[in-house]
Amino acid sequence: MNEVKEVDIIRIKDNDVAEETDEVIVEYPFTIFLNDNEFITLLCTPSSLEHLAIGFLHSEGLIGTKEDILDVKIDHKKGIAYVYTKNKTNLKEKLYGKRTITTGCGKGTVFYNVIDSFKSKKIKHDFKIDKEDIIRLIRIFNKESELFLKTGGVHSCALCDKDNILIFEEDIGRHNALDKILGKTLMEDIDLKDKMILTSGRISSEVLIKVAKRGIPAIISRSAPTNLTVEMAKDLNITLIGFVRGRKMNIYSNFPSLNF
Amino acid sequence: MNEVKEVDIIRIKDNDVAEETDEVIVEYPFTIFLNDNEFITLLCTPSSLEHLAIGFLHSEGLIGTKEDILDVKIDHKKGIAYVYTKNKTNLKEKLYGKRTITTGCGKGTVFYNVIDSFKSKKIKHDFKIDKEDIIRLIRIFNKESELFLKTGGVHSCALCDKDNILIFEEDIGRHNALDKILGKTLMEDIDLKDKMILTSGRISSEVLIKVAKRGIPAIISRSAPTNLTVEMAKDLNITLIGFVRGRKMNIYSNFPSLNF
Repeated sequence: MNEVKEVDIIRIKDNDVAEETDEVIVEYPFTIFLNDNEFITLLCTPSSLEHLAIGFLHSEGLIGTKEDILDVKIDHKKGIAYVYTKNKTNLKEKLYGKRTITTGCGKGTVFYNVIDSFKSKKIKHDFKIDKEDIIRLIRIFNKESELFLKTGGVHSCALCDKDNILIFEEDIGRHNALDKILGKTLMEDIDLKDKMILTSGRISSEVLIKVAKRGIPAIISRSAPTNLTVEMAKDLNITLIGFVRGRKMNIYSNFPSLNF
Repeated sequence: MNEVKEVDIIRIKDNDVAEETDEVIVEYPFTIFLNDNEFITLLCTPSSLEHLAIGFLHSEGLIGTKEDILDVKIDHKKGIAYVYTKNKTNLKEKLYGKRTITTGCGKGTVFYNVIDSFKSKKIKHDFKIDKEDIIRLIRIFNKESELFLKTGGVHSCALCDKDNILIFEEDIGRHNALDKILGKTLMEDIDLKDKMILTSGRISSEVLIKVAKRGIPAIISRSAPTNLTVEMAKDLNITLIGFVRGRKMNIYSNFPSLNF
């Protein structure tokens, strides 16, 4: 699948007017069928589609463990994922009822319940990171995004340990990029309790919730968090760092985890 | 309602480590009740909430005209809008069925149907704009966003004519900022056929759909469009301009509407 497409544009620079072709990011409607029931259509970047489907369904609570997955088939031409699981959820119940439209890709989450369910669930970890590692990792992260350099139209997200970036994903949706990573870690049994998420995007509450659900102890962004994210990160014992730019950063929660 | 909140942070700059307070953007859960049925919870910036509720419901097709609205009450403390309309839609039908999770604030739209319904509906207009007006308007637009300067956590959106910015809104969600504007224009009977939308965010298909539904002939961004947006803008006869930075811009569709 192509992730970028050439279009004819008129480029204006000062008083120059030029007819050119330019590369724009592809916005790909991707429909997920769960046990032959149509569940949802995501608008995404057509890469790592199997991981996106798994990651999304897991974030939504429709897949429990890797063992719950019987089969995943992707029809790239039609943009459809067919996912089959052992436990058949009642989708009607899942789909109907309170929905929350988020600041990023809406997920139909019952928002308050999700927050409440975390209030009692502090993430236990002895994760510690050095600020020099963060500066170095974000520097590498910022250089990785080919699609962004081509199109300016994507967010990037990475899973890393203290030394290296382990998984890197890009998507037009902040949440899709994260779900692609979470799907891959589920399928490959990657232990997350000593890992971090790096993201190019703003950290809103639903991004933090996805990270918290998987017990990841730290999320780091070159952009801004919201007040709700800061409050939840403190409640959940997650290290939240924003505005990492050059040798600058703001630490919002779980201060002891950072070595200055 | 406060749109920003102070939090205690540790700010690192090179080797300086300082405990400071910093302003972060407020993420406000805002629940819309339609005719006493809970419809949805948006995560938004708590400003122009009446216009957001109206604009969202209108974009979703749950409010037809201004005359359809009987009453709107906002409970700022609880974060609830109570909207009453003449025509009672069957929310169960609206909420259940195919949903599309968008790259921005998900809207539960039946995506293909929405696109199909436009294929036949080119927007008829004789809208023309001079490139110097766009450069001037975006320059003003970029300076307007106080919240962004404070927090780096919001998108801004504006309605303007060729001469001036008429309405300016900010929100943590690209779509909320646009819906706030669309709600205000509905309530105040503002004619949109000679107006433009300016946005700080990327232009994905669902943003273009909101603009197209209201017959707005042009959308201009300092950021990127997707291929789907470019195709739809051409189909719909909407002027789509992106990457307006300084005296540079890319024109993606409806070229004749621009005076170079």
